Amino acid sequence: MWRQLLPVGRNSASGGYRRFAWTGADADCRDWFREQARRRGLTYEVDRNGNQWAWLGDPAAGDAVVTGSHLDSVPDGGAFDGPLGVVSAFAALDELRRRGVRPVKPLGIVNFGDEEGARFGLACVGSRLTAGALTVDQAHRLTDADGITLPQAMETAGHDPDAIGPDPVRLGRIGAFVELHVEQGRALDLTGDRVGVASAIWPHGRWRFDFRGEANHAGTTRLADRHDPMLPYAETVLTARQEAERAGAVATFGKMAVEPNGVNAVPSLVRGWLDSRACDQERLDTVVGGVERAARAYAAAHDVQLDVERESFTPVVEFDHTLRDGIARILGKDAGLKVPVLGTGAGHDAGILAGRVPTAMLFVRNPTGVSHSPAEFAAEDDCVAGVLALADVLEGLAAP
Amino acid sequence: MWRQLLPVGRNSASGGYRRFAWTGADADCRDWFREQARRRGLTYEVDRNGNQWAWLGDPAAGDAVVTGSHLDSVPDGGAFDGPLGVVSAFAALDELRRRGVRPVKPLGIVNFGDEEGARFGLACVGSRLTAGALTVDQAHRLTDADGITLPQAMETAGHDPDAIGPDPVRLGRIGAFVELHVEQGRALDLTGDRVGVASAIWPHGRWRFDFRGEANHAGTTRLADRHDPMLPYAETVLTARQEAERAGAVATFGKMAVEPNGVNAVPSLVRGWLDSRACDQERLDTVVGGVERAARAYAAAHDVQLDVERESFTPVVEFDHTLRDGIARILGKDAGLKVPVLGTGAGHDAGILAGRVPTAMLFVRNPTGVSHSPAEFAAEDDCVAGVLALADVLEGLAAP
Repeated sequence: MWRQLLPVGRNSASGGYRRFAWTGADADCRDWFREQARRRGLTYEVDRNGNQWAWLGDPAAGDAVVTGSHLDSVPDGGAFDGPLGVVSAFAALDELRRRGVRPVKPLGIVNFGDEEGARFGLACVGSRLTAGALTVDQAHRLTDADGITLPQAMETAGHDPDAIGPDPVRLGRIGAFVELHVEQGRALDLTGDRVGVASAIWPHGRWRFDFRGEANHAGTTRLADRHDPMLPYAETVLTARQEAERAGAVATFGKMAVEPNGVNAVPSLVRGWLDSRACDQERLDTVVGGVERAARAYAAAHDVQLDVERESFTPVVEFDHTLRDGIARILGKDAGLKVPVLGTGAGHDAGILAGRVPTAMLFVRNPTGVSHSPAEFAAEDDCVAGVLALADVLEGLAAP
Repeated sequence: MWRQLLPVGRNSASGGYRRFAWTGADADCRDWFREQARRRGLTYEVDRNGNQWAWLGDPAAGDAVVTGSHLDSVPDGGAFDGPLGVVSAFAALDELRRRGVRPVKPLGIVNFGDEEGARFGLACVGSRLTAGALTVDQAHRLTDADGITLPQAMETAGHDPDAIGPDPVRLGRIGAFVELHVEQGRALDLTGDRVGVASAIWPHGRWRFDFRGEANHAGTTRLADRHDPMLPYAETVLTARQEAERAGAVATFGKMAVEPNGVNAVPSLVRGWLDSRACDQERLDTVVGGVERAARAYAAAHDVQLDVERESFTPVVEFDHTLRDGIARILGKDAGLKVPVLGTGAGHDAGILAGRVPTAMLFVRNPTGVSHSPAEFAAEDDCVAGVLALADVLEGLAAP
């Protein structure tokens, strides 16, 4: 099952994955999901927002137990972020059948569309639309780097863009959602545990910094006559790191665009995106406020214009305590040990759903902490431990 | 004549020109050149390297006087850099005919291909090939951002890539080459002159800095676990400015590439190109050596790998003193004033040819100094003064 999915959307040069929403690689991943559902005799459906579901039992009965994750990737992402949760969901179902477990509640597996937001710039589009956390108008305005809109991309891929929108009936049938995910840090590695349970997702956001100067000849324009936006950008990058260090938060400039981007031209525009996250709102405000204030001063010193826009923001998400404690009890009983509970700086579909249905997350150990990279890795033993833990949780929730 | 050329390759959003070698916009510019030659009854030819020539008289007679420049542009370049020299060449010929001047030497107008190097990264490809300053092998290996090689691009545009190579016979026929160009600084504006003569082209080069770190999740990777190449890049940008200031030189990071370039990913690669120029070799070495040393220290501090490669380099070019003094005399006599002689930090086809034939340059005042930008500008009166000065020079050289 895992082996079949491995080559899909993999770039041979980087070794990383490029599974972007509504592309050919995405379609291949979706075909794989449908085939897995078919093989297990599960009821397959695609909802109005393009999320895929596979059901054991009738979801209309309500109080369903759902697990799953996403199959799309960041540019040159790793093999585990997303797919591990979907593959483990099918594997956990196989394990339940092996054990002869007969769930009394409907059991669902989901693949949420466009979780990473690699193509249209907004993460968790599939779950956001379903939860009503993204309006149809906002979704229709999303555009990729080639100027293709989300509706155009959906249509090309054979999905009706006019069908999208909130899906409260579908969400109302879910009694618990559990997402298994590879850990994207080294917390489990440091404690020596294979599997952990999420406590909360840190508040996080993305801010676009547009430094606008004046394009000019790099050979003939005196330094004193320049309005070079690369200089305040560089100062801002360094300040962001310092502010994050001071606050115990993270801040990253990982994406940028330069115009005209010519070797012999002083740039007219340097655009950088700041991604910042912290364990609470106050610290995050401190970091981003500090970076923005400094950037404005740097821009003014170089006579460069600066516009800062918050492109997305997600407040802190506390996962359902009852479900979390229940899961910790289930896992603790079977494994005979204390299950670590940890926070995370990463956004997930589980974070979007948490506002609507009782939601929890399981993390599988990542020995290097590397993620969003071809080098992302989880050991086979740890993945098996994750599947067994997920099977335990599904059994405990759906066949108590 | 000028008005016809203005809309070609202009981007409606930026107002800048995107006339890149061997593209449709380039073909349109070349059609315009051939049409101008045809209208004036000049002998038209394209040489083995794709440079266009228009002749009054038979070039085979030798000791020809040639003027011209280039029609291609940097990304979002201005209207004057290049085209002003070609348009002025045709206008100066018209002026000579109006005056009834009968040249005793062959008179040529040239449009050198791919001067800016915007597409394949190397400037002055047309004149370099002709002068033997670029080998056929090197040219065949040039590749654009989409992976299209120079030979492929030539073939698509209908030019035989196997025909390219040095052209000593053609160069041997040239007794003097004079390139008119819009000034790319404010020296003439500061002295109050419309037209100046070039003394030398500063030594200059391009260096590629590849900072390689490790792609990782921007939300979950602890700052201490990161190898973020954006940080040493930012420090290097700031150091380059300081080194250039200290040496009275220029240094610019105007082009860059980031991988994977995702908002929520620590980059694996930040690639920046340094363009640096100084009035002499020693100062240039001081600047670039200082930047590279600092960059290596910054990279080491962040546990990031750094590779620095010199992509191109042109030593100082002193224009022919006899020709320069002759031109200054011709212009001084007619204009009744002292003609300013100035150095320049910009590379030109004239700089490539200077090693092979007596070469000179005329500069036309640029009131803002802005260049390589849609805001590049020269006043109509100054352009007319440039045409008249060029006509004087051609008359003085070809019909003495």
